Amino acid sequence: MNIITISREFGSGGREVGKRLAELLGYDYYDKEIISIIAERHGLDEKYVESTLSSSQWSNVALSFRHSFSSPIYFHEPKVELLLEQKKVIDEIAASNRNCVIVGRNADVLLADKEPLSIFVCADMASKIKRCKERAEENEHFSDREIKKNILRIDKNRKLSRYLITDKDWGKKDSYHLIINTTDWDIKELSKALKEFAVAYFNNKK
Amino acid sequence: MNIITISREFGSGGREVGKRLAELLGYDYYDKEIISIIAERHGLDEKYVESTLSSSQWSNVALSFRHSFSSPIYFHEPKVELLLEQKKVIDEIAASNRNCVIVGRNADVLLADKEPLSIFVCADMASKIKRCKERAEENEHFSDREIKKNILRIDKNRKLSRYLITDKDWGKKDSYHLIINTTDWDIKELSKALKEFAVAYFNNKK
Repeated sequence: MNIITISREFGSGGREVGKRLAELLGYDYYDKEIISIIAERHGLDEKYVESTLSSSQWSNVALSFRHSFSSPIYFHEPKVELLLEQKKVIDEIAASNRNCVIVGRNADVLLADKEPLSIFVCADMASKIKRCKERAEENEHFSDREIKKNILRIDKNRKLSRYLITDKDWGKKDSYHLIINTTDWDIKELSKALKEFAVAYFNNKK
Repeated sequence: MNIITISREFGSGGREVGKRLAELLGYDYYDKEIISIIAERHGLDEKYVESTLSSSQWSNVALSFRHSFSSPIYFHEPKVELLLEQKKVIDEIAASNRNCVIVGRNADVLLADKEPLSIFVCADMASKIKRCKERAEENEHFSDREIKKNILRIDKNRKLSRYLITDKDWGKKDSYHLIINTTDWDIKELSKALKEFAVAYFNNKK
């Protein structure tokens, strides 16, 4: 079974890279699908699951408990319950033994024993802002400054969430196999090149 | 013409990646070859050229003159003379219009207008120390601590040298197309995967 995990900066196109890569390789694809599974199982609203998982509300408390986020004292924290549930879903995906691409959720750390090819996707701020604008809903009119603030806020939360389960820093070069900077890169073509890389990588591992 | 530039942390195996990649692709390969050309042209000792180019002796002065290292006031600094000479040789290599891999020397910045595929190669400290030990001469007996100190010193000088010509940080993810972490990776197999990536990348650019 081949697993590719994709972490990414908000606005870098990481999700698109993951989606295209899964299509090109014929792999299963998981991103928000994981949220949907959790929501359905527990009769929760998808938006509630997502916002709770990505919130940073209690991160400062938990940071001192790194590596022990499953400690009983946290069991009644909704974020911890959902993180544990998320881990369970990700473990089930891996147990299904099907090739897949998983975007986000620190799957590279959670599935480290399955030796995934772990990729981090980034871009410079100008191109992330540009990308966010291109993808904005018609009624959204944020200034560049507001978009930048939002990007930094989301990425800060991702960073803090990662600290709960690993000391392998979010977005640092030692934490992944590959870091790809999508600035000025056509993501469709990049994904094709990446597919070739992944095929060669997994062929060697066998 | 396709150019691949490789920057790397000392001990990460970046040079080997570059060499293998050049072989697999049938590209010209430049690393110390550039030092040899400079030394030969000016009747200098290769070791002198190399140590002067990699020294950090005057970097603190020059840092405040970033982007202007060719300023006349520096013309009689040996390091500046050699940096300019190095730039000249790299420009000549690019002008020859042959596909090539260039390791080090901030060629990604010097040849930015040729749109090279720019790669940075890194690894965690333990595997860099291991690699240095495996490659040590028989009469070399340095402790892990000494090797680590040396790795950090060399990389610090590389970082400072880069600051002389660009504000694109050395080793930061925004400064390259790809960052590859060679930790626990077989470099021979990695190079094969990277070759596939490079072929797809350049095919698209045409």
